[in-house]
This record gives sequence, structure tokens and C-alpha cells, in this order.
Amino acid sequence: MPHPPHKSKRPPFPQKGAGKTPERKRTGEKKINVNLFGLHAVCEAIENPARHIHALYYGTEKTKELCLAALERARKNGLTRPVPAPVDRSRLDAALEGQVHQGLAALVQPLAETFLQDVMIRAENNGDQRQILVILDQVTDPHNVGAIMRSACAFGAAGMIVQTRHAPEIEGIAAKTACGAAEHLPVVREVNLARAIETLKEHGWFVLGFDERGDATPDRLPGYEKCVLVLGAEGAGLRENIRAHCDRLVRLPTVPPIAALNVSNAAAVALYALSIKKM
Amino acid sequence: MPHPPHKSKRPPFPQKGAGKTPERKRTGEKKINVNLFGLHAVCEAIENPARHIHALYYGTEKTKELCLAALERARKNGLTRPVPAPVDRSRLDAALEGQVHQGLAALVQPLAETFLQDVMIRAENNGDQRQILVILDQVTDPHNVGAIMRSACAFGAAGMIVQTRHAPEIEGIAAKTACGAAEHLPVVREVNLARAIETLKEHGWFVLGFDERGDATPDRLPGYEKCVLVLGAEGAGLRENIRAHCDRLVRLPTVPPIAALNVSNAAAVALYALSIKKM
Repeated sequence: MPHPPHKSKRPPFPQKGAGKTPERKRTGEKKINVNLFGLHAVCEAIENPARHIHALYYGTEKTKELCLAALERARKNGLTRPVPAPVDRSRLDAALEGQVHQGLAALVQPLAETFLQDVMIRAENNGDQRQILVILDQVTDPHNVGAIMRSACAFGAAGMIVQTRHAPEIEGIAAKTACGAAEHLPVVREVNLARAIETLKEHGWFVLGFDERGDATPDRLPGYEKCVLVLGAEGAGLRENIRAHCDRLVRLPTVPPIAALNVSNAAAVALYALSIKKM
Repeated sequence: MPHPPHKSKRPPFPQKGAGKTPERKRTGEKKINVNLFGLHAVCEAIENPARHIHALYYGTEKTKELCLAALERARKNGLTRPVPAPVDRSRLDAALEGQVHQGLAALVQPLAETFLQDVMIRAENNGDQRQILVILDQVTDPHNVGAIMRSACAFGAAGMIVQTRHAPEIEGIAAKTACGAAEHLPVVREVNLARAIETLKEHGWFVLGFDERGDATPDRLPGYEKCVLVLGAEGAGLRENIRAHCDRLVRLPTVPPIAALNVSNAAAVALYALSIKKM
């Protein structure tokens, strides 16, 4: 939809507020290119040996300090990082179109792909008594995906599996909402989630599908040594085919009239409930 | 507040799609005024006898249907509601500045104030074995407040208490995120939360403050008949004074490196954990 044309002779951009646009245009400063922002998201990326970082930008003295502290820790671990560049907050605002960036942003390379086999092997070898994996069936909202990653990490999940399509990239809002968890939680992208579920079952994982038609609530479940939690998109829920592949359907013990939780809240509850189970 | 008068002889609303902006400018249609949006938020408001509605707007055939169904149920319960007006989605977009409105919006009056005494009395008389109240200590993000209301409602909480200042109005984004819970969960606004906590304690409520320094996790707590859950803002946590007034500090059983959950996820987990406790 075209922006209605201005008919006045006044300059097209206002002089204050977001403010610096004409100035920037004149001095020819380019729009900066970033795909990761937020204090925790960027600082955890700086310290992640598996993450390649092209550029770092800070907008305030506070964020400079936090960034330098993370860089110092990274350097001690032998990581080479670009020198962070100071930028005017308004340039970060312009680059991130109103997202809350907290004055810290970076241009990073996506993490290398993780494979289901790797996640299973790592989970089985890490010595913990209980292993949890999360599968997201077409959860597309990056806020929800990020919040689920954060909770999954906090409750010690071994990884997350999403569909190759119908899942956001783990950068930008998703990484910001994940609050650093994107650097710790392995994410597997699978073309066919039903097939991934079958592979997991063959390797001894018990697959719980979260669905309001479930016949059990998590507090009534036994403890599973290796357990997969499958969550569908808000509204639509699990797809029929995915539901059919689950070992058991579970629901949360909610009461009417508002019986459904936001999917990231449902995930947090489910992860907590599974993580506290006695074996 | 009156519906803006139509000034053109053309049918007042464009027949399809977006893209009519220049047309609209010419015909002088005013920006519509709404403070509630989203399918669940508006439909639950329509059916809430305590809610006064000034105007209803729908943007699609689907939302018209859902709106008319809610109006029919409201009418059966003796409620008088304004006739919903069709509007072009682009007008809703303009009125709501990019918020996800799902094609349904309303102009409503805030709900009448609820008092702490009323909530306590209602909780004690409702016959349920366990009562939970939620106190938010300066949680300001409307997304978080809305999501917490939704979870509080889903896990059967009797009400929510916020500070008169430092809490968002329960409309717009907060109500949208609450997904209808704003029409069901009583919200008390108190000038002094510490005093509210003392009042609750005097009436036999046990007050649990969520704080990472807590000495217990919710799975290890006994069941409380009347329990208050106090949550602080993300990052800042509970204020010192509020923390000091709690009967006990509890934390979630999370693991490093990402040990903190988003506040709405932490609230959902805590509400679940308390609601499943055996008495």
C-alpha cells in the first residue's frame, strides 16, 4: 500500500524524535546490518565458541561495559572477536525497526546445523538421569519459539526439534526472547517431524504430545528416562499426523472458562512438570 | 463515545482488501477509536455482564460470524450490545498501529474497580478447596501482565493484585494477551502492596515470594489452603520491601547457564505447581 504522498513543502521527515534521519542521509552513513540483539542474546553469543561473529555494536556506556566484560571472558577462552563499534542508539533503532535491542546488537553467522543423531547421542552420554527433548510442530511466532528455548534451557532440556519449514530462524526476536538460550540449546531442523518422532521412539524415547484431548495431566505421569515433549501451534494445536505418532497425549490441569495457556507458558509448565518427576 | 459519522455518499466501507487509503483520505473517514482487540478479548467482553461496550468493529466475514455468535449468547443473557460495524482491516490497522487485532476490535469502558476485601470474601466463599491469588510487583510489560492473567485464570486463581502505579491498564495488548481472562479474573489495584500483603496475612493467606534466593522449590512445598504468589519484574525481581513481607521465598528448580525464566513463564509454572498440590 503506497504511503499517501506529501503535499506540503515541508521536509518529508520530522526534525526530532527518531530525529537523525536527514543528518544521516547527508553524511551518507549506511544503515547497519545486524541479526542479533539484546544484552543476553549478544553476550552469550560472544562467549559461544561455536558462534562466528562479524560485527558488534553498542549504543550506551552500560552496554559497552557488559560487552567488554563478555569479550574479556571470550578472549580468556581463546576466542577471537571483532572490536565492538559505538553507534548512536537511533541507528540501532533504525536498523531494528522498533525492536527492543537494549543498546547491543551484532551481525552473526547462523550456528552450524545440528543433527538428530548428535542430539540423541549427546543426551545419552551426558550422565543426567533424565533427558528431555522438545519438538515444536509449526510454532511460528518467534516470541513463542524464543521463550520456549529459554524455558527448555532453564529446565535442562537436551535440545529442540523443529520443522525445516514453518519455523523461524533463531536470530532477531527469537534469539532476543531466548535470552541467550540460543547459544546453548541445540536446535535440529527436520523436514519430516513424524519421521523424527519415529526415530526417537526407536531409540527408546517416550513421546508425549500436548493436546487438550489428552487423557492425563503431567502430575499424574510416571517419570521417563528419555522423554520428548511435542507442542503444536497456538490455536491449531498438534497436526493430526503428528498427534497420531505420539506415545501418549497429555493436557494441562486447567479450568474453564480460559482453559488454554499461551504455548510458551504451556511449554514451561510441561518442562517443569517433567523435570521434577521422580524416576 | 460516538461512532464517527459517515460523510460520503459512497458506501461507507470499502468492499474488499486493503489499499483504499487514498480513497479514505478523500472521503474524510475519521480514525476509529478502540481500546480492546483480538478475537477472544472482544468476544469474552461481549458476554461479560460487567462490561460496558460503546462500539464494536469487525474486519472480516469470519470475525463477523464470531462476533455475532457472541452477541447472540449475550442477548440470551439479557445484555444490550451495540450493533457491530464493518470496517476495512486497514482502518483497524491504522487505529491499532500494527498490533495484531485479528479483525475484531471494540471501544469499551474499563471494568469497575475491585477491592481486596471483595476478592478475599469471594475466594473464601467459592467452595474450592484451594485458593490462589497473584500479586505483581511492578511488572509493567503488558504482554507479560496479559499472559499472567491468562495463566492465573486457567489455573483457577481467585484474582490478581497490582500496584496502582507501575502497572498497565488492562486493555489493548494486555487484554489481547490475556485472551479473554481480563473479563474473568478480578484485578485489584493497591497503592501499597506491602500493606496489601499484611492484610492478606492477617486473613490467613500464606504469602510466597518468587525470588532466585528462595530456599525452596514449589515441588517441595506443602499444600496451602489460601496462598498468595508474589512475582517481581523481570530483571529487577521483587523489591526489597516486598520480599521482606513474604512468608517464604521460593525459586524454580532451574539449571545454569540460563537459570531465569521469562516472568510470565515463571508465573505459569508457579501457578501450576501450587494448583496441583495435595492438601
